[in-house]
Amino acid sequence: MLSFSTRRKSVLTGGALIASALLPFTVQATTTEARSARGAEMIRHLNNGEAQPNLEAMREEFPFLAEATEAYALGDVWGRDVLDNRTRQLAAVAAMAALGETGLMRVHAGYALNVGVTEEELKEIVYMITVPAGFPRAIAASQALSELFSERRSSVVE
Amino acid sequence: MLSFSTRRKSVLTGGALIASALLPFTVQATTTEARSARGAEMIRHLNNGEAQPNLEAMREEFPFLAEATEAYALGDVWGRDVLDNRTRQLAAVAAMAALGETGLMRVHAGYALNVGVTEEELKEIVYMITVPAGFPRAIAASQALSELFSERRSSVVE
Amino acid sequence: MLSFSTRRKSVLTGGALIASALLPFTVQATTTEARSARGAEMIRHLNNGEAQPNLEAMREEFPFLAEATEAYALGDVWGRDVLDNRTRQLAAVAAMAALGETGLMRVHAGYALNVGVTEEELKEIVYMITVPAGFPRAIAASQALSELFSERRSSVVE
Amino acid sequence: MLSFSTRRKSVLTGGALIASALLPFTVQATTTEARSARGAEMIRHLNNGEAQPNLEAMREEFPFLAEATEAYALGDVWGRDVLDNRTRQLAAVAAMAALGETGLMRVHAGYALNVGVTEEELKEIVYMITVPAGFPRAIAASQALSELFSERRSSVVE
Amino acid sequence: MLSFSTRRKSVLTGGALIASALLPFTVQATTTEARSARGAEMIRHLNNGEAQPNLEAMREEFPFLAEATEAYALGDVWGRDVLDNRTRQLAAVAAMAALGETGLMRVHAGYALNVGVTEEELKEIVYMITVPAGFPRAIAASQALSELFSERRSSVVE
Amino acid sequence: MLSFSTRRKSVLTGGALIASALLPFTVQATTTEARSARGAEMIRHLNNGEAQPNLEAMREEFPFLAEATEAYALGDVWGRDVLDNRTRQLAAVAAMAALGETGLMRVHAGYALNVGVTEEELKEIVYMITVPAGFPRAIAASQALSELFSERRSSVVE
Repeated sequence: MLSFSTRRKSVLTGGALIASALLPFTVQATTTEARSARGAEMIRHLNNGEAQPNLEAMREEFPFLAEATEAYALGDVWGRDVLDNRTRQLAAVAAMAALGETGLMRVHAGYALNVGVTEEELKEIVYMITVPAGFPRAIAASQALSELFSERRSSVVE
Repeated sequence: MLSFSTRRKSVLTGGALIASALLPFTVQATTTEARSARGAEMIRHLNNGEAQPNLEAMREEFPFLAEATEAYALGDVWGRDVLDNRTRQLAAVAAMAALGETGLMRVHAGYALNVGVTEEELKEIVYMITVPAGFPRAIAASQALSELFSERRSSVVE
Repeated sequence: MLSFSTRRKSVLTGGALIASALLPFTVQATTTEARSARGAEMIRHLNNGEAQPNLEAMREEFPFLAEATEAYALGDVWGRDVLDNRTRQLAAVAAMAALGETGLMRVHAGYALNVGVTEEELKEIVYMITVPAGFPRAIAASQALSELFSERRSSVVE
Repeated sequence: MLSFSTRRKSVLTGGALIASALLPFTVQATTTEARSARGAEMIRHLNNGEAQPNLEAMREEFPFLAEATEAYALGDVWGRDVLDNRTRQLAAVAAMAALGETGLMRVHAGYALNVGVTEEELKEIVYMITVPAGFPRAIAASQALSELFSERRSSVVE
Repeated sequence: MLSFSTRRKSVLTGGALIASALLPFTVQATTTEARSARGAEMIRHLNNGEAQPNLEAMREEFPFLAEATEAYALGDVWGRDVLDNRTRQLAAVAAMAALGETGLMRVHAGYALNVGVTEEELKEIVYMITVPAGFPRAIAASQALSELFSERRSSVVE
Repeated sequence: MLSFSTRRKSVLTGGALIASALLPFTVQATTTEARSARGAEMIRHLNNGEAQPNLEAMREEFPFLAEATEAYALGDVWGRDVLDNRTRQLAAVAAMAALGETGLMRVHAGYALNVGVTEEELKEIVYMITVPAGFPRAIAASQALSELFSERRSSVVE
């Protein structure tokens, strides 16, 4: 955990480093325990060292869905290292905006900002989304991003 | 136009250069003619110097849709320079795969390869798509990519 | 049936007449038999006096789905008279194009042409679809319309 | 109606009985009045003997949509007897969760619980939905189910 | 601008006039400035002479998306004159309802009422949507329309 | 493998047995190897003892997607035992039909038939799909099922 804080600093100061350089998980995790641990580490990496509230809320009533999110989505998929985290986050934000899934899009847009993506880059994804998915999904995504940007600014001030 | 051929070579040899470095269009195009010209240049940049057959086929019966594709989608949106072309193509491929639009996804995956994206990176987008959009869309995208890769390999041999 | 042929002529020569003026079904059909009959009449009205092949093909293996299509979709819904047939067909084409359902969109675009909608009006729907649903769905719809227009022209020549 | 109350008890005490065993509607309803009556009976069967508030709210401003929901969706479709009510509800919950229609999914999940489906079985549908439709839709469905479970528990206590 | 107010009156009193008869924009707008001006005029035409709040809210943080909405969606697409405004609005409402985009659907339903579409015609679109898109999307659209109708009635009273 | 053939017989003769009674995998598989083995066993159980061609085709070019399909989708999700295989297959068919994913829907409809679901039950799912997802998706699903039924009949004859 100490080393995690240390590594976080380099992200905050150095911008978009590649996850695989930060995380010692390039060895294939093969047990569910190791996959979940990799997912948990990934989420802390993406979420400024903190757990993800939605995920924690699922653990009691939907333990399998929580495990699948952690071990499969965040561990197996997000833990891969061919794409850097910035590109994967931008592509995930694009996919979720295109599908109209603004709630999780916003979560991943926050992760993107945490790993060095700029607000301007996220806005570009929203502009681009008008082409594959039309204006209603792009406008909904722009409103979700505006709220996210606003909350982050007010939480920095406090 | 001569300079275009020259610039293409650097793309083919040098890999994933950022579009805004290649294209002198950072000045806002403000007439429909200039926007269409920018879109046409962009498509040649993405498509190895050639016109896009689907777009040309629309010009006679659907002239407004062809113009909108060229001037708005490719000129206004793809001509922006905050994101580099590689990232925009990967995000567009992700959005189209998520929506099940495998036909245009394949076109943009081809553009992505032309501007230096690797096959491995495109595969990563497909893996990632299982998370926001599920397995049927990811599997359909993988089949479209397999066909694209195969065609490009056989056309190189000839 | 004789009166049907007579009425068809007025459609072919007189353009977009309102269905409720043509069809004596403004009295609410209340039995399944009457609703199906109204649907069958509607389909002949929309389809140049002929049965709809897809519907007929469903009758043996999917009799309930065939009945629901005939009695509910075509009888109850298409048989209503607040909107004229042209407007309903254009709105149905828009909805199906937006959803990517190009197969049934093409069927309804053919109906639209049969009740006096012009090719130019159908193209406008496709242009408009770029706004709510993006370019891939609009382009797919344009390709389906091109095929439809081409087939109808060659069948007229013969 | 008296017999309805009697039959309800067997559902509440006996768990997941098959609707067709409960409802004397296997004879095809052929008038709109009979179809609507069958739908109204079905909704009381699914909704603990009470009317469905959303449906009642539509009756004044959208009378045809209310009638279609009652006579077609609940009467014709839900009144069929090849599938038992439990399986149909689980399949309907799966379809609505996959489409992101969490509002009506929650209504049908409530019906499912009323005819003897367990909370664990509904959770399994949500887990399964990650495969055809991805994690955002599954997570949204899990949140809607959590709210439903919580409300039903607090209303039992009162 | 003076002439705009004058023309608005004829819309409010005279019902569903065709946009192309009102707007002197049939000459192709070819600069972004002229396209944006045409879009701004169109929005005032559709919105009782007032700006559109969502659009204005986007201008600061998402200037390109605001420009694309104004110049492309409202200027280029809505400014076309093959379809009259009533038909285009009904088709747009159908497409947005089918996609589940009830927020923008409601905006366009308001525009439709402003250019002379009746509440009954909008309800017909919603009934029809059960066929291409199913009951959950139609019911959600009916609820959005009910709210819109109710707000407009209470604002007229005041 | 011998015991697998033995167990298959009981399925073919005895109808819809619950998977957990057939498969000795109720113990949680915790390594990727064990999860993949469970998925492979599940696919043979669902597919009459044979491998799934689409899955095998993915192994070379998309090894991670093949592994995720086998270990996550078929091992972790399909290997759960709260729902019996028949109910899970019917719900999966409903979800895929609702999403318009007729290709994989057909694969899972074939699995459903292999574990004792009847053709009539699959048709009921398709009828039901008109309610949550509309007629185009239901009709497309009916056509895919017709093809599947026809192929299976002709392969039995040979």
